[in-house]
Amino acid sequence: MTDADLKTAPVPTLRRLASYYHCLKQFEGTGRDTVSCTHIAESLMLDATQVRKDIEMTGLVGKPKVGYPVRGLIEAIETFLGWDRLSDAFLVGAGNLGAALLGYTRFSHYGLNIVAAFDIAPGKIGTRLYGREVLPLDKLTNLASRMHVAVGIITTPAEVAQTVANLMVAGGVRAIWNFAPVMLDVPADVIIENVSLASSLAVLSSRLARRREADARKANPKEIP
Amino acid sequence: MTDADLKTAPVPTLRRLASYYHCLKQFEGTGRDTVSCTHIAESLMLDATQVRKDIEMTGLVGKPKVGYPVRGLIEAIETFLGWDRLSDAFLVGAGNLGAALLGYTRFSHYGLNIVAAFDIAPGKIGTRLYGREVLPLDKLTNLASRMHVAVGIITTPAEVAQTVANLMVAGGVRAIWNFAPVMLDVPADVIIENVSLASSLAVLSSRLARRREADARKANPKEIP
Repeated sequence: MTDADLKTAPVPTLRRLASYYHCLKQFEGTGRDTVSCTHIAESLMLDATQVRKDIEMTGLVGKPKVGYPVRGLIEAIETFLGWDRLSDAFLVGAGNLGAALLGYTRFSHYGLNIVAAFDIAPGKIGTRLYGREVLPLDKLTNLASRMHVAVGIITTPAEVAQTVANLMVAGGVRAIWNFAPVMLDVPADVIIENVSLASSLAVLSSRLARRREADARKANPKEIP
Repeated sequence: MTDADLKTAPVPTLRRLASYYHCLKQFEGTGRDTVSCTHIAESLMLDATQVRKDIEMTGLVGKPKVGYPVRGLIEAIETFLGWDRLSDAFLVGAGNLGAALLGYTRFSHYGLNIVAAFDIAPGKIGTRLYGREVLPLDKLTNLASRMHVAVGIITTPAEVAQTVANLMVAGGVRAIWNFAPVMLDVPADVIIENVSLASSLAVLSSRLARRREADARKANPKEIP
C-alpha cells in the first residue's frame, strides 16, 4: 500500500460528481439511456473536458460518439462517492437544524443513515424526531463504540462542538460532518467535513457588494476617478 | 468601467477569508493586538504564503516583522466580503431548515438581515418565527419590490424552488442563497450561491470509503494483488 492509495479525488471533483449525479437522475427520469459529457456540461454550464476528466476518475470509460450509459454512470458515481454503502450516523444537537437534517429523506441515497439523535436538554431527551429517539449525550461514546457508528453529525452551538467531537472520537467515529461554526481539533485519521454557512455567505455578500459598486458606477459615471 | 471591476476574488479565497475572520475574532477575544500571516496559517493549518496572498486582496498591507493590526484586518475583511453593510433578505420555506436560519443570530455579522419569512402552508402563515412574521408566498414579489429586498433565501423542497426563484427575480432580488437541492435557472445578473448538502456528503463519504479500503488492506495484506 502506498500513500497514493489513500488519496481521494480533489474536493472540487467530488462536488462536481455530486452535481453530475443529480443531472443524471433527471436524465434517467425522462427515460434517457445514454449521455455524453457535452450533454452533462451543457446542463450544468460547465466545460465538457472538465466533465470528462472528472468522470474518468470513477474508472468508467465512455464509448466514442455514444457516450456513457446513464444507469452505468449513476452507479459508477455512487460507488466512487461511497454512496452505494450505508454508513450509520449519530446526530448531536436536536434543535431546528438537527431536526431539518433528521427530516431530510434523501440522505439514504448519499450513503448516510442517521440512526439516533442526542441532546443535553431534558425536555428533548426521550422524545422522537422523524422516527429517531433523542438520547442523552452521555450515552453517545458507549453506544457509538458498541454499534460501530462511523459518522458523527454536529448541529450544536459552537461553544460545545469540540466537546461533542471528543465524545465522538472516543466512541470510534471515523468521520464528522460539522455544521457548528468552529474549527474542530481531532486526530489526523478522523475525517472532518465542515458546512460553513459563513463561508457561503462570504461568497454571496462579496459578489453582491461588487455588483452594487458596479451599479453605482453606472448610475454616476462622472464620479469615476 | 472594465469587466475587471466586476470581478470578485476567487471562491476559495473568499471562503478562506471567512475562516481568517473567525480566527481573528478569537485572537481579538484573547486581547491580542497584532497578528502575522504565520499565526493565522498555523491556527488554520494553512500555508502562510497563501494567507498573505488572500489578505493582499483586501488591500490591507502588513508591517514587516509586526504583521497586521487585528482590528484593522477584521475590518478590512468585513469590508471586502461586504459584511460591513446589512442587506435585507426574505426567506421562503418556513420548515425546520428555514427556522434554523431564522434562529441563527450571527447572520447580522455577515451582512444578512432576514426581515420576513414566506410559506404556502395556511397553518404557518400569520405565525411568527424568531420574531419574523410568516407571510403568504403570493405577497413576496410585491413586497420585495417595494422594500428593495436584495437577497432571497430558499429553504423549500426542490420541486418548488424554481417557482420561488422566479417570484424573487420578479421582485428585483439581486442574490439568491439556495438550500434546495436543485440548479436554479435565473438571469445572468442574479447571483446564485448554492449550499449543497449532497456535495458536502460526497466529500465526506468518498473519503470514508477510501479510508475503509485502506483499513481493509491493512487487515488483510495478503489480499493485495
